[in-house]
Amino acid sequence: PQSKLPDVGTTIFTVIGQLSAEHNALNLSQGAPNFSCQPALIESVAKAMREGHNQYAPMSGVAALRHALSAKVDALYGCKYDADSEVTVVASASEGLYSAISALVHPGDEVIYFEPSFDSYAPIVRLQGAKPVAIGLSMDDFSIDWDQVASAINSRTRMIIINSPHNPTGAIFTDFDIERLTALTRNTDIVILSDEVYEHVVFDGERHESMACHPQLAERSVIVSSFGKTYHVTGWRVGYCLAPAELMGEIRKVHQFMMFSADTPMQVAFAEALADPQSYLGLADFYQQKRDLLAEALSESRFELLPSRGSFFMLARFSHFSPLTDDEFVLSLIRDHQIATIPLSAFYSNNKPTGLIRLSFAKDDDTLYEGARRLCRV
Amino acid sequence: PQSKLPDVGTTIFTVIGQLSAEHNALNLSQGAPNFSCQPALIESVAKAMREGHNQYAPMSGVAALRHALSAKVDALYGCKYDADSEVTVVASASEGLYSAISALVHPGDEVIYFEPSFDSYAPIVRLQGAKPVAIGLSMDDFSIDWDQVASAINSRTRMIIINSPHNPTGAIFTDFDIERLTALTRNTDIVILSDEVYEHVVFDGERHESMACHPQLAERSVIVSSFGKTYHVTGWRVGYCLAPAELMGEIRKVHQFMMFSADTPMQVAFAEALADPQSYLGLADFYQQKRDLLAEALSESRFELLPSRGSFFMLARFSHFSPLTDDEFVLSLIRDHQIATIPLSAFYSNNKPTGLIRLSFAKDDDTLYEGARRLCRV
Ligand SMILES: CSCCC(=O)C(=O)O
Ligand SMILES: CSCCC(=O)C(=O)O
Repeated sequence: PQSKLPDVGTTIFTVIGQLSAEHNALNLSQGAPNFSCQPALIESVAKAMREGHNQYAPMSGVAALRHALSAKVDALYGCKYDADSEVTVVASASEGLYSAISALVHPGDEVIYFEPSFDSYAPIVRLQGAKPVAIGLSMDDFSIDWDQVASAINSRTRMIIINSPHNPTGAIFTDFDIERLTALTRNTDIVILSDEVYEHVVFDGERHESMACHPQLAERSVIVSSFGKTYHVTGWRVGYCLAPAELMGEIRKVHQFMMFSADTPMQVAFAEALADPQSYLGLADFYQQKRDLLAEALSESRFELLPSRGSFFMLARFSHFSPLTDDEFVLSLIRDHQIATIPLSAFYSNNKPTGLIRLSFAKDDDTLYEGARRLCRV
Repeated sequence: PQSKLPDVGTTIFTVIGQLSAEHNALNLSQGAPNFSCQPALIESVAKAMREGHNQYAPMSGVAALRHALSAKVDALYGCKYDADSEVTVVASASEGLYSAISALVHPGDEVIYFEPSFDSYAPIVRLQGAKPVAIGLSMDDFSIDWDQVASAINSRTRMIIINSPHNPTGAIFTDFDIERLTALTRNTDIVILSDEVYEHVVFDGERHESMACHPQLAERSVIVSSFGKTYHVTGWRVGYCLAPAELMGEIRKVHQFMMFSADTPMQVAFAEALADPQSYLGLADFYQQKRDLLAEALSESRFELLPSRGSFFMLARFSHFSPLTDDEFVLSLIRDHQIATIPLSAFYSNNKPTGLIRLSFAKDDDTLYEGARRLCRV
């Protein structure tokens, strides 16, 4: 068949995951914990199943979960989302992003996003017959050049996709970013699609700049987040969207046909888990320790580590000691050193070599130590 | 925002579900069991979670489940699907349909489907910038007029969507349907998208005409099925697609961005469940008893029941005793008799009144008796 995505292959996470398994490598590639969630969360799902929560949930999500999310976002970010019309439970942040883009982006529209970028944004936009417009982040500190954004905006610009904390770089939005984004979108009908799956993983006491913190942005934003990243269960497919009712109405029109509803017993369990804010407020410290452990253990390596201010990820430079492309270097790490990482080039639409690899520190401490040991041998 | 689906509202299943709850009605509307699955299945998920199967599954699905599906389809329908390249686990049949249509239908293409129809097909096609071409099933026996299909096929026809056993009518494909479909698609590049979620629910000893039974059809077919319908757990979002590798490659390109992967512990549990063929082979008898119970209990009612040869559904005619439209009649049933059903008109793109309602008999026997009692009062 004629492909709608002729230049898209298998997602990098699958490619590296398979290579990693074939070479019996230690896996620091995907942002998936290799440690357990709280046993209580598992028992909570088991209880929900035994109590009979096994049939279709409401299309918009289990009511208790929508209300718990609404209360949480109000307490944390000071924004009121109506649990009935402005909160929708989706079957993963991936599905949330796909539903939002499918519902709101029309053929011929342009969508601005920032590279390096999570690999789904651009293909989803292209599948709508729309044009993804990539703006490169600074190669120094992965900051956004807002003047470049200003010049990219035109009458066809329908959406700007942002992601803070940022996968793959660990950058986070600053006050200045918020100011410029607010100014640039004021009096436009541009929708901000804000991928906030790492919202609880911001380091060094800085605060997460949720779109929900800023009324002028919240009114035009679709926020997507995930329970998998927050509760160490990336294989339980539950996420959520927050958006003003008018936007949400359109998103639900698509979501109802794409998934109808997300997993029921897991929704029931997450509603219970949210009752204890410690279940997510401790996450920043937890991952900061892992970031620091990995950085410390790599201090004797030849890699130059770039600062990570949030997310599960840290970038490491190899270009000063190896002439290989990102792909070649990652392959040699897997083959010769049994350690799997992601080439940063995979997060660029033109696959351009950057001399950087992405390390995931969402791993237990032993794996981080052993991973660092292998990387120190390089 | 400008809507991409301006004439689509909230899916009928949500609308009726909410009305039903508001009026405290007995719910014979959605095809969702109100009874339990096997307790062993629940314990199997609990075990998988405790054993740590909580992170991202492979994008194409847990290997054991893909292999179990491949073996099952071979044993049952005599078709060999390669577990690595021709079987993909998706996060519900809904997602499978959405992925397949998104991957294979291009803007400007035409997609033939049959009305009455499940409500997602046409909107998904329209979201691709393609044209859904509805062909009405006979109002007598819901058979397909293949001559009409022949005239509808042209060079833009990219796909034909079929669904047997059929939701909402309970019709099933016959040898004649298979013959005509084979003849009409031979030497074309038309893809058949076959929604077979009720594959194990065929009554009176008839056999399910899976596309996998017919090599000439299988080679051009995408088969979508669901575990939720087969194991009485519609709220656990796991389904699967079967297709030749070339088609599957395109579907996976979309699935990887739409969902990445389906729920992990539930995939592990379904792989175990498939090891016992009785877990699905008994389903036809189980639901046939329910169909017969409901029909018998309604024999004294004013409704004229239409034969159901498969699925969870049966149609009932009211037009000979009530002048109301389908919508009005269903609303009066909910309000005045506390019994929820689905108006058949909701399964037509023009919402045309048919004088018929759809009853779901995926309910415990007490609910069916009580539902029939209420319908007998009408
Ligand atoms: C499906 S991959 C989701 C994000 C992630 O875990 C990663 O970037 O590694
Ligand atoms: C999301 S509704 C799925 C099908 C069904 O259960 C129905 O038609 O009632």
